Amino acid sequence: MKRRRAITLALAAAPLRPASAQAPAPAGAAPIQVASIGGLHFGGEVRTLSGLPVREVQTAAGGPIRRLDVNGDFLVGQMYAQYVKLANPRARHPLMLWHGGGLSGTCWEDTPDGRTGWQSFFLRQGHDTWVSDAFERGRASWPRFPEFIQEEPLFRTLREAWLTFRFGAEDGWALDPARRRPFPGQRFPVDAIENLGRQAIPRWTTTNPQIQAAYDAYLQRVGPAVIIVHSQGCNFAFQAAINAPDRVAAIVAVEASGAPDPARAEVARARGIPILYVWGDYMDQGPWPAFRRTVDRFMEAHRAAGGRGDVLDLPARGIRGNSHMIMHDDNSDEVAALIQAWLGERGLMRG
Amino acid sequence: MKRRRAITLALAAAPLRPASAQAPAPAGAAPIQVASIGGLHFGGEVRTLSGLPVREVQTAAGGPIRRLDVNGDFLVGQMYAQYVKLANPRARHPLMLWHGGGLSGTCWEDTPDGRTGWQSFFLRQGHDTWVSDAFERGRASWPRFPEFIQEEPLFRTLREAWLTFRFGAEDGWALDPARRRPFPGQRFPVDAIENLGRQAIPRWTTTNPQIQAAYDAYLQRVGPAVIIVHSQGCNFAFQAAINAPDRVAAIVAVEASGAPDPARAEVARARGIPILYVWGDYMDQGPWPAFRRTVDRFMEAHRAAGGRGDVLDLPARGIRGNSHMIMHDDNSDEVAALIQAWLGERGLMRG
Repeated sequence: MKRRRAITLALAAAPLRPASAQAPAPAGAAPIQVASIGGLHFGGEVRTLSGLPVREVQTAAGGPIRRLDVNGDFLVGQMYAQYVKLANPRARHPLMLWHGGGLSGTCWEDTPDGRTGWQSFFLRQGHDTWVSDAFERGRASWPRFPEFIQEEPLFRTLREAWLTFRFGAEDGWALDPARRRPFPGQRFPVDAIENLGRQAIPRWTTTNPQIQAAYDAYLQRVGPAVIIVHSQGCNFAFQAAINAPDRVAAIVAVEASGAPDPARAEVARARGIPILYVWGDYMDQGPWPAFRRTVDRFMEAHRAAGGRGDVLDLPARGIRGNSHMIMHDDNSDEVAALIQAWLGERGLMRG
Repeated sequence: MKRRRAITLALAAAPLRPASAQAPAPAGAAPIQVASIGGLHFGGEVRTLSGLPVREVQTAAGGPIRRLDVNGDFLVGQMYAQYVKLANPRARHPLMLWHGGGLSGTCWEDTPDGRTGWQSFFLRQGHDTWVSDAFERGRASWPRFPEFIQEEPLFRTLREAWLTFRFGAEDGWALDPARRRPFPGQRFPVDAIENLGRQAIPRWTTTNPQIQAAYDAYLQRVGPAVIIVHSQGCNFAFQAAINAPDRVAAIVAVEASGAPDPARAEVARARGIPILYVWGDYMDQGPWPAFRRTVDRFMEAHRAAGGRGDVLDLPARGIRGNSHMIMHDDNSDEVAALIQAWLGERGLMRG
């Protein structure tokens, strides 16, 4: 109780975000010429519930009590994507931005400390952007459990984000911002970790097949596309490239947390797809050595099949201090520019 | 009437379900000049869980088994909004689009049959748009229950949508599209009800106080604003106007399903805020007579206090066949144009 009160005071005393309601446009930036903007869902199927008890509820304040029969037909397994199409895109293909575990597509929008995010960056570079939420995350919606998803979902604690996202060591975490001790040189805005916590999304560990099926449907609809993908999403992107190589023009795997096992997946099918692997700092921390070994195994198999696999190891380039949340770190646009340069070198921009 | 036929014909000339992956831009439409685009979360507070058992999980495919301690600190109660700011807005205030129950902000994007939605319409009319997801809906995320929210959530069945949204009578519902019998003249694209089902979001009935608090925080941050709000959202918008009348420039209440009780709410505080009440057809169906009585009571109290309350009763204007989902009906842009005209008459556009 005492602990919570202290934190509430700390939050109240020091506003974590700028007073303006949103990140300012880059100074002097020209308007983005947008042809159309919208959002849609796809994938999934009708599933039916029966045999559950009937209840009574009040769904509108002041409204009547209603009898609620939860049995019936639902859409289950769909995902969501939002597009911004440019009047004159410079990129040859749509750019898809796929989120990682425990997050939704909002991770590509404003950063936790209120700067513009990678969606804006790549729009300004001339890409049509498609920002999605995987099945059971965010606007994709989620179905009843355990009827439609085994198990219960996971909710990431702030401390778990601190550790898994390599913001600092175990003894450096504190709910009180004044007592947090991040890794030296840390670029993630740890004073704004609450805003990362605000965008955290519950997730299940048993839904990979449905998530993959929805991503595959997404690529059939929108591809061929360039995919920039983060963390847990990378495994789905690599598998999607194997499943439909004609629908993927390139993959930028930012801090991949897993990849298909070359002993079981037909990695060679993705040989025509160039992949850029982007890694931050502090890679000896937490589960990351094991995660990276899995990804490196995939990379080697992809290369052995003739695929192009480039590595953007930021510390090796002299860029130190990046966390797992590179798109949120204080040099996010600097890293985005390196990715943009790679896309240009791969011939994915016009002119 | 002559006007309506012209618009209907224009819509009919374009296929309602384009084969392309997204709704096409209006033919010959000029690009939208966008200054900035992004998304952010706000509101809520740190809440702490303790005493729950530790589990072991595998969060990345091929990754290691990890010990998962679900106890810890979480953000609870926040909401999400996405903004598109124009380079040269014609509107005097930002336009907020608030969704109804069981839906997220996606209801303002493409329609279930693949046309552009009201977000696009109002962007093209010169409004900065802010599309939000209420607490526990969509990208706002939701916290563990029953620890942080009493009860379990509700999931709307396709049949319940059919009845509550006034698409047809009970005996007209069928899962097989060929056997569906909507109300005569129905304008909702009932063949695409699955796409409405795809965007359906679980909701709780016990979260009104947290949802209201987050909306109030949202208005403090972005207002003064014009609010276009649907169904369950109307109750929150009316209450928000009472709570902070200086932050609300006008409300367009589309098919309000509830409103604050004038016997308990200080309705007179909102007297300076003009309100347009928009109603579709088939209002004698299901819970709607009771819902509308509640809203009319609020309207009368608001008017009695000196507030301006206008009614756009579509059937009374000779526009028949609108469902509860007016922004998805086949004349959605026609109704949006009537709303836009009202905003102009209220002095909310420049020049």
